[in-house]
Amino acid sequence: MNPSAPAGPESVTISFRPDGKKIRATRGATVLEAASQAGITLQSSCGGRGACGKCRIRLISPPSAPSDAELRHFDEAELEQGWRLACQVQVETEAVVEIPPSSRMMREKISLQGLGREVEVEPGLSKIFLRLPPPSLSDQRADLARLLDSLGGDVPPPSNLSLLQDLPDRMRRQDFNVTVVLSDGEIVEAESGDTAAQLYGMAFDIGTTTIVGYLTRLLDGAEVAVSAAINPQVQFGDDVVSRISFVSTDEEGLTRLQEKVVGAVNEIIQEACREGGIDATRIYELTVVGNTCMTHLFLGIDPTSLATMPYVPVNAAPRTVEARELGIRINPRGRVHVLPNIAGFVGADAVGVIIASGLEENRGLRVAVDIGTNGEVIVAKDDRLLACSTAAGPAFEGARISQGMRAASGAIDQVTLIESGSGSMTEPRLQIHTIDDAPARGICGSGLVDAVAVLRKIGVITSTGQMLPAKSAPPSASPFLERLESKDGKLRFVLAGPEQSAGGEPICLTSRDVRELQLAKGAICAGMLILLEEISAKPEEVEELLLAGAFGSYIRRESALAIGMLPAIPPEKIRPVGNAAGLGAKLALVSGKMRRLAKEVAGRVEYVELSERAEFHQRFADAMILEPVSGARQADR
Amino acid sequence: MNPSAPAGPESVTISFRPDGKKIRATRGATVLEAASQAGITLQSSCGGRGACGKCRIRLISPPSAPSDAELRHFDEAELEQGWRLACQVQVETEAVVEIPPSSRMMREKISLQGLGREVEVEPGLSKIFLRLPPPSLSDQRADLARLLDSLGGDVPPPSNLSLLQDLPDRMRRQDFNVTVVLSDGEIVEAESGDTAAQLYGMAFDIGTTTIVGYLTRLLDGAEVAVSAAINPQVQFGDDVVSRISFVSTDEEGLTRLQEKVVGAVNEIIQEACREGGIDATRIYELTVVGNTCMTHLFLGIDPTSLATMPYVPVNAAPRTVEARELGIRINPRGRVHVLPNIAGFVGADAVGVIIASGLEENRGLRVAVDIGTNGEVIVAKDDRLLACSTAAGPAFEGARISQGMRAASGAIDQVTLIESGSGSMTEPRLQIHTIDDAPARGICGSGLVDAVAVLRKIGVITSTGQMLPAKSAPPSASPFLERLESKDGKLRFVLAGPEQSAGGEPICLTSRDVRELQLAKGAICAGMLILLEEISAKPEEVEELLLAGAFGSYIRRESALAIGMLPAIPPEKIRPVGNAAGLGAKLALVSGKMRRLAKEVAGRVEYVELSERAEFHQRFADAMILEPVSGARQADR
Repeated sequence: MNPSAPAGPESVTISFRPDGKKIRATRGATVLEAASQAGITLQSSCGGRGACGKCRIRLISPPSAPSDAELRHFDEAELEQGWRLACQVQVETEAVVEIPPSSRMMREKISLQGLGREVEVEPGLSKIFLRLPPPSLSDQRADLARLLDSLGGDVPPPSNLSLLQDLPDRMRRQDFNVTVVLSDGEIVEAESGDTAAQLYGMAFDIGTTTIVGYLTRLLDGAEVAVSAAINPQVQFGDDVVSRISFVSTDEEGLTRLQEKVVGAVNEIIQEACREGGIDATRIYELTVVGNTCMTHLFLGIDPTSLATMPYVPVNAAPRTVEARELGIRINPRGRVHVLPNIAGFVGADAVGVIIASGLEENRGLRVAVDIGTNGEVIVAKDDRLLACSTAAGPAFEGARISQGMRAASGAIDQVTLIESGSGSMTEPRLQIHTIDDAPARGICGSGLVDAVAVLRKIGVITSTGQMLPAKSAPPSASPFLERLESKDGKLRFVLAGPEQSAGGEPICLTSRDVRELQLAKGAICAGMLILLEEISAKPEEVEELLLAGAFGSYIRRESALAIGMLPAIPPEKIRPVGNAAGLGAKLALVSGKMRRLAKEVAGRVEYVELSERAEFHQRFADAMILEPVSGARQADR
Repeated sequence: MNPSAPAGPESVTISFRPDGKKIRATRGATVLEAASQAGITLQSSCGGRGACGKCRIRLISPPSAPSDAELRHFDEAELEQGWRLACQVQVETEAVVEIPPSSRMMREKISLQGLGREVEVEPGLSKIFLRLPPPSLSDQRADLARLLDSLGGDVPPPSNLSLLQDLPDRMRRQDFNVTVVLSDGEIVEAESGDTAAQLYGMAFDIGTTTIVGYLTRLLDGAEVAVSAAINPQVQFGDDVVSRISFVSTDEEGLTRLQEKVVGAVNEIIQEACREGGIDATRIYELTVVGNTCMTHLFLGIDPTSLATMPYVPVNAAPRTVEARELGIRINPRGRVHVLPNIAGFVGADAVGVIIASGLEENRGLRVAVDIGTNGEVIVAKDDRLLACSTAAGPAFEGARISQGMRAASGAIDQVTLIESGSGSMTEPRLQIHTIDDAPARGICGSGLVDAVAVLRKIGVITSTGQMLPAKSAPPSASPFLERLESKDGKLRFVLAGPEQSAGGEPICLTSRDVRELQLAKGAICAGMLILLEEISAKPEEVEELLLAGAFGSYIRRESALAIGMLPAIPPEKIRPVGNAAGLGAKLALVSGKMRRLAKEVAGRVEYVELSERAEFHQRFADAMILEPVSGARQADR
């Protein structure tokens, strides 16, 4: 409490130049130890035995007789100028020390790869080991003041009362040797002894369907383990609208949905820790992305307003919460950073996509589409960032498709036309591929896009999506007419016969399935066109189109272009990038700068509400047509 | 999230000059309402009907046709210059308004009296009523952003997740009319509708023996109710040392002691609210003083280190905690501010005494003594503030005195010598006074000091504290020798005979009681002398001695000087001031400035550890003598 109190005989003040840092160290500590306490790491390959001579410093005051080791490493003139070895000088009274750049350990810069951006590992989280001088009658500083003084005075008292409650025990358990965990310059935890080497964090992408967690060592950004699980909220509905409806009709709905997602996150943490051999209490930070509804539910915030006009979120700002407050089982005082949302249906996952891919950097016209349960489109040009949400629906995840399924084992994920036969007698033939080459169990998003593209090509489906009966089909359809069946008076097209199917039933595409796809792909295409129009750009000018999300990785660009799911963007510019949202969360975990960038970016994005646009309905209707959008250079195959 | 989004048709931006404030108000609101929302209160004695003409403003833009009322109040030239009435102008588009000083409501300055200082009522807590524009498709701001924008953009998002969870309901319940509670510029609560008139706080002095709470209306600093209770921790020991011992021996000790004090605080809150007719959820702030051990226990911090060398506290810094975290039953999101401690045995109560009495102001040599269960001495001179704790023990509260008791009904609180008889035949006689004139039940601190002073005067006690048997007593003692008895071989002096006593047993003073008093008064006197020596001052130079604490109000200065409890300070300089610590807590409640001052002062006080002083033991031994300290001008009587 009283900084002007005389330092006790057990502690001495050391100032470091040119850093300007001043700390109180235990009397008798070496300058090497004191420097480390001040956050200055010196080179010392011999481990402080005076052998390597790398920890050269200049002792400005007080004078000190050179040790044998110092006599070996310096000549008389150098000793005269105060050159010493940091490991040899023990501080007994107030000391002033100059540390030359050549003696400093240059932290190797470690970077993680984003999508066309490199991010230096510089987490907001750090640990500092302190060897505190024990209290005495002449140094009666309070425990907390003792700790803060040793950190150099810039660090505020921890806001957490429970940490203060634990402090006296933590400090005394290992004789006032304590490791402090700092997050964004604030103390979040104090551990007994030296635990500086154990510093972990986890990045989470909470999808409507799937939750993925990346356990990361924050000292170097190394990925220790990845674990994923189905979002257990699916039992209350496949899409966000049905979950919101559950919240607004069931009194305990919000609580239950939050418990579900927190439970799944905890299981993922547990599994990743087991896999990595890590103690979960050494995880002090989580970064979380997800769509706006998911981040609301995760934080226990009622998302009801998202579901009704005018679709406003309760919160869009980034939010940091203590782990214990959410029931997240990492270190209870660890912090959970939920990245900012942009709008009711453009969430923190979209922000993750932006920071992962550097869309906010002024790098020409770039577009990202994240197709999950919803389809978010982001367009970047010059200094502008535009985003919209397209009500694509979960068709691409297999929902609402008669035999639809997720991209799992046995899903038909590719449908292609090949020429079979030999010599001049070749005939086109349908080839299907299933994930894991397993017997077919259903059709997933990429298979759906492929199938419709193929059926359009052979003429079984018209450009308006009508499935033609055998008698009306064009000649190009004739090799496939046996696959056209009528069931309950409705036409369907057999993709895989009973002999190829796991259940012994054929896997078919129905007219209704085609209609669902048209709605989904039309929404995405129309959204993208409207954003491009907004910045007066044409599809063919797009320099890069990032297809994010699992579906984006499986989809075949040619098919997507053929059915007009994407506007006429040159196919070589289209790049599937996998879980870009999750990558964004990971970058925000290993880099405090990226986390701050996420906030800045979210505030900059111009959200375009499609339903407010007069032209949207026309664009949407046009985009339902199953044809390449005019101007597209379609890839030949 | 997106401040550059166009304001919707329901909200418009108004800028106020010269304040530089810019807010978004509901379209159609009057400038008078919008100004209030921006925290600018205009004069308006007619209540906004255009009648009084006091809310004169200049409308810089847009142009606006004058109303009938405005035509009455302004001439053509004024109207031309843009002069209008704030209650008449409805804002329909972006507007810029200039508000002259003459139209502003000058808040009446209300002050509270401290001890020789006047403190302006300016609490850290305030309420702002907001009429928010409801969301629309063209104004899709998140609930939180909507709220923050209306506060002018300087207020950070609330750190409290639970507040965010409640926000959508609070905002919608009264059609986006909401009252925000701000503490030190941060949002702590949001209430539906207009509750701005209900703003309360409570100041607490948590003593080892007694807890007092002052319920205060923060709009004007008025005291609504005062309530007090015995600290229920007394069942675990009378003094701090026995409570600490309970904590270190009983595993649940800390929890139980915290529960006890929190329970008592809650009862006091409940009683004060009942008395004042106040809803406790309208209390948003508590300030708390107490000795270092009491503040530790209140916060659930283990005080064990206070009891053993070198007596260090865990925390001395001021601390703010949410009420719900401590289980304090005011508004759960209200804040509890525990004032800073100075050292292990000079607590926040001493800080309260300092700020209540302005000791930190450079006003000559002033001394304060707070005699509770411990005795803290504070000496102020020039820019220096010194403090020490004297192990006075609880003798002045009646503990360790054979028939000691607190200053309650039936306690002997005064013992005086009077001349009785008439004409030339007068004889000195002992007169006792009891609190409430009730039959005597015991002796309290001030009675003890009086009794010893009288017994010294008549010669029954020697200056070293020895009680003389009848045969050795001087002639001055002869009228009182019948009061000297021997019991179990030990001498005792009867103050009140069985006929005056409630229990039918005499109330006596024993040799041991005298010894206890010597220890207690010697410690206080020695401590004060050492602090005065430290700043090279003499007792007779003291310009004011404040006797704080209940005991300080009852004690008779002459007796205290006669037995050398206080050094030779002119008696007219001695001023009993009652519960100065509690007053300090109250001032810190009604004035954010005083709360900040408390922090600053606590950091400035030089704590003097008496046990470290070589001279202390000699001073202490000298001060045990029952004689005026040399140099004292003793009052004649």
